[in-house]
Order: sequence, then structure tokens, then C-alpha cells
Amino acid sequence: MTIHTSFLHQAIELAVDNVKHSGGPFGAIIIFNDMVIATGVNRVTATHDPTAHAEIVAIRAACTYLNSFQLTDCILYSSCEPCPMCLGAIYWARPSAVYYASSRFDAAAVGFDDSFIYEQLALPADQRSIATQQIVTENHSAPFDLWRQTQEKIEY
Amino acid sequence: MTIHTSFLHQAIELAVDNVKHSGGPFGAIIIFNDMVIATGVNRVTATHDPTAHAEIVAIRAACTYLNSFQLTDCILYSSCEPCPMCLGAIYWARPSAVYYASSRFDAAAVGFDDSFIYEQLALPADQRSIATQQIVTENHSAPFDLWRQTQEKIEY
Repeated sequence: MTIHTSFLHQAIELAVDNVKHSGGPFGAIIIFNDMVIATGVNRVTATHDPTAHAEIVAIRAACTYLNSFQLTDCILYSSCEPCPMCLGAIYWARPSAVYYASSRFDAAAVGFDDSFIYEQLALPADQRSIATQQIVTENHSAPFDLWRQTQEKIEY
Repeated sequence: MTIHTSFLHQAIELAVDNVKHSGGPFGAIIIFNDMVIATGVNRVTATHDPTAHAEIVAIRAACTYLNSFQLTDCILYSSCEPCPMCLGAIYWARPSAVYYASSRFDAAAVGFDDSFIYEQLALPADQRSIATQQIVTENHSAPFDLWRQTQEKIEY
């Protein structure tokens, strides 16, 4: 068994255990310097939080552990391919790599919308099933204008 | 001024105010029955949480307010086009509509990766800048198998 397979097994075991505790069938772990620094399981229904996917929970916990908003040199292992929300979070957190076991199509087969959401994001905003519309207000650039002028800011 | 423009103004004002308080230039509000039930601003660097975008913060707060993991019949207003992470969260929370003022390209022009991440998500996993690899372990389907067999579960 490779190190990657071993860590994926841990993520999968978390997912199985979570189903036994009224959670969704997803688990994730984050590794830094070959050590597990954070774990996450899907707690969407348990905590009434649609963003509480295993990967998001693990990313937030790892960032708290590292006292950083970046996961530099970390690896994320997930029992399933990250959905677009989680993949977006991964791009903002910037770990060095991601490994997963089941695919978005496996998730869709048991009723999770991952594959559908990937399709939706690739569509122009006005063709999506959730209506998404830009209204260019006369003050729309005010936040970015102020951001440009601000000297002491943390870019990311 | 339309009702949509008025609510967008509120989101934009939150964004401007957040820059003045060491936050990112983004704000969002969520409306239910014509009432603001939640607000959010970008607190990524302030709270060391890469998922703390304005929309995610507002979605979590609105779900707490409604005691639900779904934002049925809610409308989300954001000062800027949601990034893929936030758009994914919107698809999981399922509000009825989304309105935004600035675009992903405006965000990119002041250094936020939104547009880049949209491009990355559309690529096959093995062509992305963050290496994302599937490893089909022999037990990969265990969480989904157990989920299928579980009678008392909340689907979403």
C-alpha cells in the first residue's frame, strides 16, 4: 500500500463512520510534513450548513492549526472528488496536491449533485438553473477602488 | 432605483466598510420575504479562513437564521460575481436567484483569482495547476454503499 492509498483509506474510514453518525458519506484529511493536521466529515444536515462538506471542514481546521489562510506544502486526501465549491476552496487555500478515491459520477449515482454543478458552472450565467444576473450599479467599483488605494492590505 | 439596485447598494456599502476594517473588498446580503436575514463580508485574512468569502459567510448566517441547510425562496445579493467556490455553495444552498454588481474580471483586475479559478475548474483534473489525482482504492465505494443501505437519512 502506498502512502497515498493509506491516507485515502483514513479519509474513507471517516466517511463510513460519518454515515453511522447521521452524516453524509464523505471524509477528508489534510497532511503536512507527513502528519495528519486536520480531518473533516460532511455535516451539512447535522449543522444546517450547506458549506460543511468534508473538504471545507478540513481546510478550515487545517488553517486554524497552521494559523494561516494558506495550506502551503499540504496535501488533501478526500474520499470523493471535490465538488466545485470544495475545488474552489482548494484553489484559494492552495495545497500542493489533492488525491481522491470515488469520482463526481459515483457521487451523482447516490444522489449528490456534484456532476450537475460542474455542468452548471461552465454555462453562461443567464443559462443556469439558478438565475444569476449582473446589474452594474453606478457605485459598483467603489470597493475595488478603495482596495486599490489602500496601502496596508494583505493580498492573497 | 429598483429593489435589486437598492439591495446591491447595501452589499456594496458592506464591502467598502470591510476594506476600512482590514477586510477584503466584498460584501453580500441575503433576503427572505423582502427582509435582510443575513449579511457577510470577506474575512479570509482576518480569520485565517480561505472559505470566509462574503457569500459563504452570508449563506452560513442565513441558514443558521432559518434553521435549515436550504435557502428556499431567498435571494442573494453580492457586490461581486461569486467565485466558483461561492457559486458551488449557492448551488448547494439553492436560493431562488443571485444578483451581483462587479464581474469576475473586475475582481481579477485588482488581484483576486476568480477568473483564473473558473478556467481551472473547466480543465480535466490532470491538467490543472494544483495536481488533482484519482486513486481508486479497493474500498472506495464503502461510504456510498453504506449510504445506499441506510434507511433513515436526510437527502439533499
